[in-house]
Amino acid sequence: MSWKVQSNATDIDTLLLEESLFFNGNGYIGIRGNLEEGLPNDAKTIRGSYINGFHDIVDIPYGEKLYAFPENQQKLLNIMDAQGIEIWIGEDNQREKLSLHSGEVLDYTRILHLDKGMTERILHWKSTKGYELKVNFKRLVSFHTRELFHQFITLTPVSMNIPIQIISSVNGEVRNFADKDDPRVSSDDENRLTITNLSWTHEGSLVEVQTKASKLRAAALSTVTVSSNSVSYRYEMNKLSVQTIMDMILSEEITLDKRTFIADSTRYENLQESLFSIKNRTALFSFSELMNLQQDYLTTFWGKTDVTIDGDDKIQEAIRFNLYHLLQSAGQDGKTSIAAKGLSGEGYEGHYFWDTEIYLLPMFTMTNPDLARKLLQYRYSILDSARERAIEMGHKKGALYPWRTITGTECSSYYPAGTAQYHISADIAYSYVQYYLATNDKSFLKEFGTEVLLETARLWIEVGHFYNGEFRIDTVTGPDEYTAIVNNNYYTNVMAKYNLHWACKIARLVQNEDPMHWKALKSKLSLEEFELEEFQSAADAMYLPTDRTLNINPQDDTFLQKEIWDFEGTPAEHYPLLLHYHPLTIYRYQVCKQADTVLAHFLVEDEQPEDIMKDSYNYYETITTHDSSLSSCVFSMMGARVGYVDKAYDYFLETARLDLDNIQGNTKDGLHMANMGGTWMAIVAGFAGLRLKEDGLYFRPQLPKQWKGYTFHIQYQDQLLQVSNHSDGFKVKLLSGGQVNLHIWDKRYIISAENPLVITNR
Amino acid sequence: MSWKVQSNATDIDTLLLEESLFFNGNGYIGIRGNLEEGLPNDAKTIRGSYINGFHDIVDIPYGEKLYAFPENQQKLLNIMDAQGIEIWIGEDNQREKLSLHSGEVLDYTRILHLDKGMTERILHWKSTKGYELKVNFKRLVSFHTRELFHQFITLTPVSMNIPIQIISSVNGEVRNFADKDDPRVSSDDENRLTITNLSWTHEGSLVEVQTKASKLRAAALSTVTVSSNSVSYRYEMNKLSVQTIMDMILSEEITLDKRTFIADSTRYENLQESLFSIKNRTALFSFSELMNLQQDYLTTFWGKTDVTIDGDDKIQEAIRFNLYHLLQSAGQDGKTSIAAKGLSGEGYEGHYFWDTEIYLLPMFTMTNPDLARKLLQYRYSILDSARERAIEMGHKKGALYPWRTITGTECSSYYPAGTAQYHISADIAYSYVQYYLATNDKSFLKEFGTEVLLETARLWIEVGHFYNGEFRIDTVTGPDEYTAIVNNNYYTNVMAKYNLHWACKIARLVQNEDPMHWKALKSKLSLEEFELEEFQSAADAMYLPTDRTLNINPQDDTFLQKEIWDFEGTPAEHYPLLLHYHPLTIYRYQVCKQADTVLAHFLVEDEQPEDIMKDSYNYYETITTHDSSLSSCVFSMMGARVGYVDKAYDYFLETARLDLDNIQGNTKDGLHMANMGGTWMAIVAGFAGLRLKEDGLYFRPQLPKQWKGYTFHIQYQDQLLQVSNHSDGFKVKLLSGGQVNLHIWDKRYIISAENPLVITNR
Repeated sequence: MSWKVQSNATDIDTLLLEESLFFNGNGYIGIRGNLEEGLPNDAKTIRGSYINGFHDIVDIPYGEKLYAFPENQQKLLNIMDAQGIEIWIGEDNQREKLSLHSGEVLDYTRILHLDKGMTERILHWKSTKGYELKVNFKRLVSFHTRELFHQFITLTPVSMNIPIQIISSVNGEVRNFADKDDPRVSSDDENRLTITNLSWTHEGSLVEVQTKASKLRAAALSTVTVSSNSVSYRYEMNKLSVQTIMDMILSEEITLDKRTFIADSTRYENLQESLFSIKNRTALFSFSELMNLQQDYLTTFWGKTDVTIDGDDKIQEAIRFNLYHLLQSAGQDGKTSIAAKGLSGEGYEGHYFWDTEIYLLPMFTMTNPDLARKLLQYRYSILDSARERAIEMGHKKGALYPWRTITGTECSSYYPAGTAQYHISADIAYSYVQYYLATNDKSFLKEFGTEVLLETARLWIEVGHFYNGEFRIDTVTGPDEYTAIVNNNYYTNVMAKYNLHWACKIARLVQNEDPMHWKALKSKLSLEEFELEEFQSAADAMYLPTDRTLNINPQDDTFLQKEIWDFEGTPAEHYPLLLHYHPLTIYRYQVCKQADTVLAHFLVEDEQPEDIMKDSYNYYETITTHDSSLSSCVFSMMGARVGYVDKAYDYFLETARLDLDNIQGNTKDGLHMANMGGTWMAIVAGFAGLRLKEDGLYFRPQLPKQWKGYTFHIQYQDQLLQVSNHSDGFKVKLLSGGQVNLHIWDKRYIISAENPLVITNR
Repeated sequence: MSWKVQSNATDIDTLLLEESLFFNGNGYIGIRGNLEEGLPNDAKTIRGSYINGFHDIVDIPYGEKLYAFPENQQKLLNIMDAQGIEIWIGEDNQREKLSLHSGEVLDYTRILHLDKGMTERILHWKSTKGYELKVNFKRLVSFHTRELFHQFITLTPVSMNIPIQIISSVNGEVRNFADKDDPRVSSDDENRLTITNLSWTHEGSLVEVQTKASKLRAAALSTVTVSSNSVSYRYEMNKLSVQTIMDMILSEEITLDKRTFIADSTRYENLQESLFSIKNRTALFSFSELMNLQQDYLTTFWGKTDVTIDGDDKIQEAIRFNLYHLLQSAGQDGKTSIAAKGLSGEGYEGHYFWDTEIYLLPMFTMTNPDLARKLLQYRYSILDSARERAIEMGHKKGALYPWRTITGTECSSYYPAGTAQYHISADIAYSYVQYYLATNDKSFLKEFGTEVLLETARLWIEVGHFYNGEFRIDTVTGPDEYTAIVNNNYYTNVMAKYNLHWACKIARLVQNEDPMHWKALKSKLSLEEFELEEFQSAADAMYLPTDRTLNINPQDDTFLQKEIWDFEGTPAEHYPLLLHYHPLTIYRYQVCKQADTVLAHFLVEDEQPEDIMKDSYNYYETITTHDSSLSSCVFSMMGARVGYVDKAYDYFLETARLDLDNIQGNTKDGLHMANMGGTWMAIVAGFAGLRLKEDGLYFRPQLPKQWKGYTFHIQYQDQLLQVSNHSDGFKVKLLSGGQVNLHIWDKRYIISAENPLVITNR
């Protein structure tokens, strides 16, 4: 099965799309797949390089600003552009720029090497004057040296003695991409970077910038070396960029090694010194050595994470592609997370949403718990902001996580589909619990998780109230953004219940296992004993709306009383609805942008009997538009859960190749990270039916008839498992570790290295 | 009883307040009560002159703009400032400016003459050099010549031979007032006027301006004449203003007559010519003749409108003050209406809200139906915009009136307390019906009202739906802005029912009385016969939420399930709540900004039995903050209705002097027009209990024990009635016209000129 994603496209539209698809990243740095040589002047492109979390602070404008509306937001900035390497062919006065859009492209292939962590472009080109050459561009953003963006070019002459000039640049004059016509893309392209230093020394080309409002600093140090002896180097600088100009005659194969080291002031105090030292350390390694280190990293990753599908190469390509980009986007420093578009683009301003916890963390939690822990630490790092926000929102205590943020403060300006989504606090709590169930990592729980669980539990006591003996939560918005500001959203209530219940459970655990720590924590939080009791009674009394006639959980208290959206009267071009109808219009009808109650049934399945989950699935399926990329994967998983394997497969198809096939038409703005995580879940939690519960792992394995089988890995409490499902049976093999409790179709098994599980498929 | 409102204040804060209280207007022009001579440089002032409806178009900014959010809004502009008349005292090099804040103020009184339609300032002043004089400033904005702002100054020397220089100016460099700290005041003070002409000719000083975006034009022509023979005139111009400089020796009383004529391009094509001709026509009249014309107009007005209160001079002052300012602010050209602040200030950007129909029209409808008709015509003039907005908001037909507007397009950027207040369309329909009931003016109904009623009725069919045999309206906001986006707001539903019912009734009436007209109208509206039946069935099946346990109408479907706001835990300085809590927090609780269900019970009282109205009143009273100035008057009226006369009186006190005593602290931004209308209603519909129904007038007269009595006038179907209630009895006297059907405490009476009604009070 292939480890390559390939393309031969040279048309502008596809190249724009491929800027996202072929991006290189390592969780710290992301470089879009722009072309070294650039594009024709009028071509639409989003030329971008990003540092995870590197942002400016931007005022949020309001026509009518009300109390506690956020005054400003963070915005991920496009930083210095070091991608540029122009290759000019021909005599001095007649030079032509090597380009996909001039001269003659004799052959062109672009490859993403999923196993090597590298991208490649292979070009055979002939100038209008007849000079012919082959050029190979390789790129990686190193997992070994997080600051390194590495470009390596091989030039091979086909015609003889080609006069050639290469211009390598680092450009400090960059802006973010703006599109006034699309509400999902920023409309602001103001220049927010000030160039504070631009120089060339023997250490390389250096560009330093500072953001206008947040005063963050970033620096890029770039070196370039050509393997030819006869090359002459020249340096040019203007106010905005530094260029290295190299002249030579190309008469044999030569290589060009460009290394750009990028760092920012949230990680390093003295940027120049740090970059010089990193550069010198890395200088000990050749490109191929660095590529080997990169490959080693990927080999380890795939060893724990690979998923194989037998019998469908397109899906196989997609699933690996998705897992790879998730890795490339995940912040690994405990201070950053995974933005909605990862590090592949600027869509949603580089903000972190609930997506990380609900759609992305499961994969990391179950395959790379060390990385998952870093993502969870990020949420702990912004707990103080969440506490402050709770106070600002009128609560006496607790933590209200922001709907979208980088540094922890709320960045959402449209609160009905933003701040009102209180469920994000429960989602974060949920992800801590899931991590604990997957790892049994009590020390992490003690150090970080307990506090998060207790503070979020407090929020629910603040926001909810008892009414007729039931605990109710009014005036919130659930995950489905086509309904807003409702009472008793099923999803919110059931997740709050989980939050409250586990806050108690974990508190008691810590209390028993480490009374000293518990005492200190109680004192830090000014937590009273009665609060835990309050948590438990609220959890026990949590009101979960149920409609006996339809035998479903209504999305909220009045959802079912509304009219059903006129789907027949809605032309296809009116989707997504949010771009064609006022929110009030949409809110007035039974219509869902995405899974809401169905997602709740996935996350907390033990709250409802099978028939209610199934009838709910049937009901919501007819009124869900899947206008959000977070939807199809949930309908796939829950389709499998309630017995609709064919349906699950159909939804899976929509989710698996969403970016590769640009199904939503906006992949150019960045990859849909949550959907990528959803693909993994659709296989592992969907077709294999995996659930994490206190008494072990639960599977309900099924196999779509279109496939011969699938195999994946999971890490469970120090055990590495290989799970596969083929026509001959469902197998779980312990690759390392002791023994594991399993429940297959609710029947209990214990496996060990010597005794793998094999169950003949039904 | 006095016709004067007086003040001796010279402190800056009170002067700022008096800019609103002493403003002069005539429905077309409004001039704030700024001082001719100005204030010290650092003094806070809102120096303003306005033309009703004269606006620029301003972009509305959004952090996240969604479909059909208005892109821009109209904004009432502050126009050329012609108030300036500086008086400089003393020799050339030692001149001192006459001012309330320098020299010595020996005596100062300011008077608003409610009977004369004029304001006056009487100043006795001594300069630091010892020159002593008396100055009398008179001002009127003419009801006779709508374009005229007239200033008339009398200077009387006390010391001998005072060297004096008077500078009269017209200033084109004006901006709107901005306050970034108050969401109720604009934060935008960008200059939106371009001066297109600035000149002095024998016709006078002329300043012409054009707005930047809307391209409206306005012009001011100003003449100034001094009665002294020895005066020397000089003219100075710069790019921004024209000044007339007059030097003289003051040795006897002289007068200065300054006339500024103001016109705009929505009324006149050629502004200069029009102003010259109006000026020359008016030149035939002296100031005292023009003042007499003004007084005649006011005499007629008071003859139909005056309300007297025996036994409370402060209330008497307030009620006349309020009625006077309502007159000054009411557009009388059929193209304009009454802004939230009238023509007294810039608060709420000069927009027209539902206030006009529900709080202001009743007074005009019942006393000045000709003027009421003009206000109703304004709504007809923007019916096309309302139709377009309905389409934009996803409806197939009907008319959705904008929540706030000048020209007819929606200007509200925060839709949960804006566009979502669909009830405004029913409110407008209601005001047409009330006008019809008061006047029996079928021709107006035919020409304008029927179309408005039918198009608004269509909206309810579009927005509502049948559910379990009931007609329900989801996802709207009622008048109470502390609850938003709910299902089945009682107010909205009952008003929609009235709208639907009367649309049918009036349609049938027109159909019977003028089949030709009906046919033409049906064709114009593409109205199908079945639609009328649909209106009637929706009205008949309208769902009106009722809670049997509490015996009240819940404000909406889930209102009563929410927790009650923690009033005890809310410090006094946290009111109004909207300035101290996020809307989500407020929406989460049972707490009302203003009367909602209680207002519905006032407007449509026959839908509920007495006990439900009373129990509802009791319930809502405990949870209403009256943070809106639209609230107290309703609680006064309904207090009287359900038998709480003392309570009614207490609420009345809060409403009557709201501006005079600056109770809400923001009268500087303009007068609270709706509250002023509410004062009238609290007497007429409150204490006297007047209701307009199909079979005549209904009274339930009561007398607060604090008063000896009250008297008011109403115009009912060509009859002028004087209604009074004193300890000796309730009297209705027919001042003109034939006979009238009355219901007093539900008992029927017929009165005529010969047979007034006298009922001894219970």
